[in-house]
Amino acid sequence: MSLDTFILFADLLGTFVFALSGATVAVRARLDVFGIIVLSFVAATFGGMFRDLLLGDHPPVALKGWYHIAVSCAAGLFGFYRHRWIEHFRNPVRILDAAGLGLFVALGTQKALEYGVQPIPAMLLGMLTGIGGGVVRDMMAARVPVVFQPTELYAVAALAGAAVIAIGYNLPIPTPVVLTVGAIIVFVMRYLAIRRGWTLPTAKDADL
Amino acid sequence: MSLDTFILFADLLGTFVFALSGATVAVRARLDVFGIIVLSFVAATFGGMFRDLLLGDHPPVALKGWYHIAVSCAAGLFGFYRHRWIEHFRNPVRILDAAGLGLFVALGTQKALEYGVQPIPAMLLGMLTGIGGGVVRDMMAARVPVVFQPTELYAVAALAGAAVIAIGYNLPIPTPVVLTVGAIIVFVMRYLAIRRGWTLPTAKDADL
Amino acid sequence: MSLDTFILFADLLGTFVFALSGATVAVRARLDVFGIIVLSFVAATFGGMFRDLLLGDHPPVALKGWYHIAVSCAAGLFGFYRHRWIEHFRNPVRILDAAGLGLFVALGTQKALEYGVQPIPAMLLGMLTGIGGGVVRDMMAARVPVVFQPTELYAVAALAGAAVIAIGYNLPIPTPVVLTVGAIIVFVMRYLAIRRGWTLPTAKDADL
Repeated sequence: MSLDTFILFADLLGTFVFALSGATVAVRARLDVFGIIVLSFVAATFGGMFRDLLLGDHPPVALKGWYHIAVSCAAGLFGFYRHRWIEHFRNPVRILDAAGLGLFVALGTQKALEYGVQPIPAMLLGMLTGIGGGVVRDMMAARVPVVFQPTELYAVAALAGAAVIAIGYNLPIPTPVVLTVGAIIVFVMRYLAIRRGWTLPTAKDADL
Repeated sequence: MSLDTFILFADLLGTFVFALSGATVAVRARLDVFGIIVLSFVAATFGGMFRDLLLGDHPPVALKGWYHIAVSCAAGLFGFYRHRWIEHFRNPVRILDAAGLGLFVALGTQKALEYGVQPIPAMLLGMLTGIGGGVVRDMMAARVPVVFQPTELYAVAALAGAAVIAIGYNLPIPTPVVLTVGAIIVFVMRYLAIRRGWTLPTAKDADL
Repeated sequence: MSLDTFILFADLLGTFVFALSGATVAVRARLDVFGIIVLSFVAATFGGMFRDLLLGDHPPVALKGWYHIAVSCAAGLFGFYRHRWIEHFRNPVRILDAAGLGLFVALGTQKALEYGVQPIPAMLLGMLTGIGGGVVRDMMAARVPVVFQPTELYAVAALAGAAVIAIGYNLPIPTPVVLTVGAIIVFVMRYLAIRRGWTLPTAKDADL
């Protein structure tokens, strides 16, 4: 298996797991099966699509072929018929989701850097690739995005990995090594945050 | 009347009817007259604007001239002064809306195919052209998009017509015929769904 | 200080004040510190970013360097630690916000005209530059955008200034004069609207 094939395979696995999160939110919001499939697709692909819009890559990767659409539909239908099963295996799904986050952030940061974006905005675009789908998924379900609420370090893990990649990219280190290290940092931080319940603070005395 | 003039006329009529849906949602959400006009414009044009962003057509068609803006403003003001009238004629408005949906889906799918997008993502972009405005209209009114809830086959009708066009486009059939058939399929499916109350299922046992 | 330096300085000051509005909304919605920073960045930059997407300027200005990101983060952290202070000085903050609105609308309208957009859509893009960030900020906090509700002439002030610039741009008047007049019109209208409580009407008998 070549490196490109491996990355495509990992990308589609990440797409499937992210899409499951969209299906779960949609089932809870009592959407119909079409709404479930749309939220699956949005959760899995919107981060990357918005990154591609900002970089000027038309059409975005998720719409260049049919793979991401097919995988998202499959995840949506799976969520429609087997949502209880997903809830039951919530913890393994979260571990896979953390791995998908690491991959998406690494590939997104790299793409932005390759398009000539400066390191700090490239970090932002890498994080956006990882969390953008979940933000729009929640906005479509008319709820405040989970990633903005005190949850276990989701965006911060993404940002840390993206920062490592943005710094390492200009050092004399092979790019695959930089990307792997960045993705692993995201995964490990997110994994530890879930295990130990690490969260960020809210503002004190916020009753305004 | 040339074909182009006919299509422009039909496009602006569809824009007007879609904009009325925005005005109605905005009046119900008790927005001020500016909010009513914005939601009219968003409901009528956002699907096509987002399609154009994804295809890289800058600026999007709705912002190349003043027609779509003027028609949306007119519909918004009409909704502001005569919202009871629109509610009263709800059923004829829904029939016109179904015709607008057929037109928007047909033109959107065709545009994506002309930009070299593959058939399956082109179907998606055709559907987006038809339903995207309504989705963002509802998100701006802080409610779950109607099209994701059990309603009378709105998006599925759009998808069916888009599929027919994506398939027919590469067959030796004149494009106007393909587009007309696709638009009619959208209209008829939507019309029958309204008449007979066809809906899609939600997930069973969704109390998670 | 050159004109460009002055404009950059004013732009970053406007960015800071707009970002404070995002921080305030986020603190009230009980977001964590990451969510507060994101909403600050979105409130300050999304209008301009969406304008740039529509014009095809990739990446958008706010992501070309690190200034806008840094200023938004600073405002977000300031809001996190000192939100009571911002509430206390609500009125001076609103005056600064009105000045920022004037600047953003003037620069946004000018940029659209320079990209060859026609006057009426250019007005819309100018207004979008001024109000778009606040709209998405509110959507992310799962509430109906304030600018669509009966508030003191926010969008209408933006639109009036944008109209003056779109008209003046093609007259034999130096562009800096046109932009200054447009920005001042926005500021004065907004200032008077705050002082005198001018609002737009909602639709009558909206209990549908």
